[in-house]
Amino acid sequence: MEYNINLRTNKRIEAIEITKEIKEFISKSNFSSGICMIYSPHTTSGILINESYDPSVLEDINNFLSRLVPHDFNYKHLEGNSDAHIKSSIIGSSKSVIIENQNLVLGQWQGIFFMEFDGPRSRNVYVKIIKG
Amino acid sequence: MEYNINLRTNKRIEAIEITKEIKEFISKSNFSSGICMIYSPHTTSGILINESYDPSVLEDINNFLSRLVPHDFNYKHLEGNSDAHIKSSIIGSSKSVIIENQNLVLGQWQGIFFMEFDGPRSRNVYVKIIKG
Amino acid sequence: MEYNINLRTNKRIEAIEITKEIKEFISKSNFSSGICMIYSPHTTSGILINESYDPSVLEDINNFLSRLVPHDFNYKHLEGNSDAHIKSSIIGSSKSVIIENQNLVLGQWQGIFFMEFDGPRSRNVYVKIIKG
Repeated sequence: MEYNINLRTNKRIEAIEITKEIKEFISKSNFSSGICMIYSPHTTSGILINESYDPSVLEDINNFLSRLVPHDFNYKHLEGNSDAHIKSSIIGSSKSVIIENQNLVLGQWQGIFFMEFDGPRSRNVYVKIIKG
Repeated sequence: MEYNINLRTNKRIEAIEITKEIKEFISKSNFSSGICMIYSPHTTSGILINESYDPSVLEDINNFLSRLVPHDFNYKHLEGNSDAHIKSSIIGSSKSVIIENQNLVLGQWQGIFFMEFDGPRSRNVYVKIIKG
Repeated sequence: MEYNINLRTNKRIEAIEITKEIKEFISKSNFSSGICMIYSPHTTSGILINESYDPSVLEDINNFLSRLVPHDFNYKHLEGNSDAHIKSSIIGSSKSVIIENQNLVLGQWQGIFFMEFDGPRSRNVYVKIIKG
């Protein structure tokens, strides 16, 4: 069973929380136990699980990545977004979460974020559930 | 089927190998083939698969992360642990390993590590098996 | 169901695309829906999903990692490849992709890469499919 989340990012670099959409999809499904895989099909974005309670944590993560990977540099790829491909490689294209009792088993402070590093863009996130 | 490993870390930054606990859990279970997902529900920690034979490899990895992400910096998050959230984002909240013949299919030198970046803490690692 | 891809890398640092091998394995299998996990059993390598259309993207990613993690440094591990273990930890030992209608659901520009950071080497990549 697969689900697609459509997103619109508004800045070049942006983290959008998608925990609520994924929780709603799982509570509507009939899977009581398994894993949920959250996947970005884009090469300048990633999926991250980290603190959702204080939004400044995601700000610190994105600010760190911007200092670490310069936007302007003597890159070989000529589209001007090699920094975004590199940040995407560090964060990763997907994350998985356990499902028990038809609920996502996230830690108390954890949220799931779509991170775009070369926006603004219209984007998709695929959610796939495997029973088990 | 889900399993919980309770851990106690003793330093601010620490890698604790959990390969043996996971292998024992799998050998006691009845799953001969599938995948095993190892998940940290904490936002200042991560799960890593890398060399377990020489402990200095994990020391080099943690020393590198400490040089890369300064503990004290002009971060927005005011709890003094933004560096730990950033390191957790780089390492990732979970890893998956193949199970065949009721055994973890790890490479010869690979071990599975829980990495805490803001200890000492009491922590949990969730292990979930999916048949297939 | 498990599949093994044998590779030979020719340089110290090299990204080898394996998308085609994985697609062929899936089209030959009888699984119409599920997830495909691609796993490296080696501690100086990783699996990455990023742009395959322009090879300079992977070149930029590897050049960035080489600048970020120096080969020669005062490391504790005495085999001279701590930088490769660190790069492997950043990229990660595996990635997962959704399967629908007996096809890998990759984004338009995405490819799957085996990345070696301490070659040249003979290497294996394990591919595992879970129905769902």
